[in-house]
Amino acid sequence: MHLFYTPAIEPSCQQYFLTEEESKHCARVLRLEKGAKLQLIDGRGGLYTASILDPHPKRTLLQIISVTHNFNKRNHYLHIAIAPTKNIERIEWFLEKATEIGIDEISFILCKRSERKEVKTERLNKVVTSAVKQSLKAYHPLLNEPINLNKLLTQPFEGQKFIAHCEKTGKTSIDAELKTGGRYLILIGPEGDFTTDEIDEALQYGFKAITLGESRLRTETAALEACFEVNFLNRKG
Amino acid sequence: MHLFYTPAIEPSCQQYFLTEEESKHCARVLRLEKGAKLQLIDGRGGLYTASILDPHPKRTLLQIISVTHNFNKRNHYLHIAIAPTKNIERIEWFLEKATEIGIDEISFILCKRSERKEVKTERLNKVVTSAVKQSLKAYHPLLNEPINLNKLLTQPFEGQKFIAHCEKTGKTSIDAELKTGGRYLILIGPEGDFTTDEIDEALQYGFKAITLGESRLRTETAALEACFEVNFLNRKG
Repeated sequence: MHLFYTPAIEPSCQQYFLTEEESKHCARVLRLEKGAKLQLIDGRGGLYTASILDPHPKRTLLQIISVTHNFNKRNHYLHIAIAPTKNIERIEWFLEKATEIGIDEISFILCKRSERKEVKTERLNKVVTSAVKQSLKAYHPLLNEPINLNKLLTQPFEGQKFIAHCEKTGKTSIDAELKTGGRYLILIGPEGDFTTDEIDEALQYGFKAITLGESRLRTETAALEACFEVNFLNRKG
Repeated sequence: MHLFYTPAIEPSCQQYFLTEEESKHCARVLRLEKGAKLQLIDGRGGLYTASILDPHPKRTLLQIISVTHNFNKRNHYLHIAIAPTKNIERIEWFLEKATEIGIDEISFILCKRSERKEVKTERLNKVVTSAVKQSLKAYHPLLNEPINLNKLLTQPFEGQKFIAHCEKTGKTSIDAELKTGGRYLILIGPEGDFTTDEIDEALQYGFKAITLGESRLRTETAALEACFEVNFLNRKG
């Protein structure tokens, strides 16, 4: 069954018009006809089944058959704040993989040693949306605009806060600290790592320093490792 | 310090000639001069420190200063057998990431539903080598030529054997089965998953069916998830 991402739909909807772009894709590209069944996700946990009432190429009308709320809702909330890499493709595949595995929110932090200061979140959001559809996620991860690290540090966050840095000392493993079923914010530094000042400031704001193992990991690999660990520990917990 | 991958070097070497390609890179590209220090890895656990005696553009001569054996040797052995994906780039990044995180051997299995039957292992081996250098691994993962699944199943393997498939029933989680410090062979199927016959045959040959969580993962993501889990569990164990 073909899947559409329709953030505008509401659980109360009996019928729903696809957007012009979606209608074109549905009626012209996929050539779906009246009566064909579709799946819709709203990005907020809603998974809908619908059938086509009118396969109009600009305003396809759907009849909503059923809706499942909180589809595959996870038992935790993961927010990863990562310094964008020089090669943006590395961030793109992190977003794809993290979406497949399970993530709720991503922020791009600008650090002292960041090699990249600009991020086209609109384009990256398309990568996330396509991963959401490919892996049948009813929840669409939230992508935030780039923010300076020191500003992010001062923002309130209800949950456990971690910083993964490459300095040798003063770190614990995440599984020793993580409380399952919780909310987590994890900071991943740039290619050149966080500066000592940045780490100290994060610790002052209640972030706990964690290690992601002995291997020397690229920025995007470290972020994915953190994503894997949080989901794995919550699966077991 | 610049790092070179020199599989031909032996721990007994006092001096060593870089290959013509390495010499060119060392003397012409990096413009390293006499006395400059280098790191060498042999891919078998040896990490060497050397200094340049003669920065010859075709046969650079090095003086070996010290050698560390079994550098960052892991406590386990991981062999992942994966069905190559239609888009080979997905295999390339799996190889890069798995090398960073920790893997010892990769096989490409040809299954009933494999979308790709051919793999250029020579090219893929270059991807692995570059990840080995980037993440400072003294061990170079072994890349095997493609092999039919049923042939791989019959090959002897000393250790735990797992098959990760997408069918709903009869699966256990890897952390319930995995004995830390062991040897593991994990099968990852093609985009269309293993057939029921392939799964049954694997079970007959002593493979245990495992789940990698509830998420619908792409082939390369599933393989990386398995790689993460095995390394994570062995770090904790």
